[in-house]
Amino acid sequence: MIYVMDLVGVAVFAVTGAIAAGRKQMDGFGVVVLAVVTGIGGGTLRDVLLGVRPIFWVADQTYVLVAVAAGLLTMLTARLWISFEKGLAVADAFGLSLFAVIGTQHAMDAGAPGVVAVLMGVITGVAGGVIRDMLANEMPFVLRGELYATAAAAGSVLLLVFPKTGVGEVLGPALALVLCLAIRLAAIRWRIQLPIFRLMRRP
Amino acid sequence: MIYVMDLVGVAVFAVTGAIAAGRKQMDGFGVVVLAVVTGIGGGTLRDVLLGVRPIFWVADQTYVLVAVAAGLLTMLTARLWISFEKGLAVADAFGLSLFAVIGTQHAMDAGAPGVVAVLMGVITGVAGGVIRDMLANEMPFVLRGELYATAAAAGSVLLLVFPKTGVGEVLGPALALVLCLAIRLAAIRWRIQLPIFRLMRRP
Amino acid sequence: MIYVMDLVGVAVFAVTGAIAAGRKQMDGFGVVVLAVVTGIGGGTLRDVLLGVRPIFWVADQTYVLVAVAAGLLTMLTARLWISFEKGLAVADAFGLSLFAVIGTQHAMDAGAPGVVAVLMGVITGVAGGVIRDMLANEMPFVLRGELYATAAAAGSVLLLVFPKTGVGEVLGPALALVLCLAIRLAAIRWRIQLPIFRLMRRP
Repeated sequence: MIYVMDLVGVAVFAVTGAIAAGRKQMDGFGVVVLAVVTGIGGGTLRDVLLGVRPIFWVADQTYVLVAVAAGLLTMLTARLWISFEKGLAVADAFGLSLFAVIGTQHAMDAGAPGVVAVLMGVITGVAGGVIRDMLANEMPFVLRGELYATAAAAGSVLLLVFPKTGVGEVLGPALALVLCLAIRLAAIRWRIQLPIFRLMRRP
Repeated sequence: MIYVMDLVGVAVFAVTGAIAAGRKQMDGFGVVVLAVVTGIGGGTLRDVLLGVRPIFWVADQTYVLVAVAAGLLTMLTARLWISFEKGLAVADAFGLSLFAVIGTQHAMDAGAPGVVAVLMGVITGVAGGVIRDMLANEMPFVLRGELYATAAAAGSVLLLVFPKTGVGEVLGPALALVLCLAIRLAAIRWRIQLPIFRLMRRP
Repeated sequence: MIYVMDLVGVAVFAVTGAIAAGRKQMDGFGVVVLAVVTGIGGGTLRDVLLGVRPIFWVADQTYVLVAVAAGLLTMLTARLWISFEKGLAVADAFGLSLFAVIGTQHAMDAGAPGVVAVLMGVITGVAGGVIRDMLANEMPFVLRGELYATAAAAGSVLLLVFPKTGVGEVLGPALALVLCLAIRLAAIRWRIQLPIFRLMRRP
């Protein structure tokens, strides 16, 4: 069940990667690369930093296959639905929430202290998109745009402080996911932004 | 023998890194960085993702030395031969083919499933150049330009499906290398490109 | 004592990251990301490449906390002192020297050969700033600007060749740090640059 949701999250992120590639007029290989990187990049960075071996997609090739398929399907069909792109932002919010919860859980399982576990939740949720934007030679969306990573951090913190015993074992992750999703959807709906830090450019 | 070819591949890629640094008017340190990153970056990412320890150049400093030397030599002599740069693309095609075969082989030796082994071949072949272009603040050539990574993928797939027994142990890698080289040289000669995926830029 | 100096180095680098975020008009999350990445990025890349587990900040969350706090404090107070920014370059020179020495020492402890140990010193000193600049979509300062990484390399080499026995165990690192600091401060004072490698841009 979690496995299937995880694959759905990978697919959703891979679609956003493929669209970014299309906006930059990349070729078919670029589409596949941005799909794969966006889909599995966050979890990869988490596993490398935590020292988890093997990385989740190295032992199970389904992840890479799903990301490649999602990228190619997007390339073939995007013209049909790209004008309804708003729906994608909602799917992306779901991917973010799911990955943040899974990432925090992995870090806690690996014995990481609290602050590090939250950081790993955020990294799992956003790093794929950061690498996607860097490959597209853009300043990462997440550093500048709407409230996004903060939603992931909120979900991670909730999971961290929620009692782990009894019903909390299932309820904690579920509530964390809902909290992250709610914040992110609210940010999309009302265009909520974090305060900007402005310094003059160097002369 | 393979060791010497591997070092030649590192040197060739290091030269392309140094030239990219020159086109961006970097200083001597920038030249060395781009030479080293382009020369050993692909294999480094492969080893980190596969969890191979130690990374190939950490135990044997010859790799770093060869990349540094190739970068500095390029800086000192490039003006003499840069107008004949076409030859470099052929050398680069050889480096790509060699690294793709070595990368796939390493992944198979580490027990990675087929799709992952092909991915590791492609990563070993192209990731150094991708990091080079990102450091030079350019959109990676491989995501947009001529057929390049696809040649590496074709060689990797051939190596994967070729029978490993008997004479195949030598013939497989040799044929994979030749296939990759042939596709890449054809792409250079006739400027073959993958289809481009075009979406309008966000308004 | 070394631990405290290490944290000071992280804080100083985090401040430079937060300032870079401000110059790019990033939001509060972007400030935190650039602070953390600049503060701990160099040591992280070193530990990943050396295969050291766990990475220094995964087991001890103080590092991340210090970087986050330094970033947020910078965001809140930078307007008060940003016109005296020159002092920051001196603090940054201290961070560079300290990280170069610590990085080289870690690599020697891990049994890396000499060239690799120097490379690890340089990586620990400069990689955080390189990732910072890439996230800000700028060509990394260190590849183009004043003498910077070369100072780290000089300190690393001195540490490497200095006799390790007796008083050298303390004197070596101290002299290496002073050498790096002296070169970097001289470079700031007299705007010393490495020679630039210029090739024509591709037509």
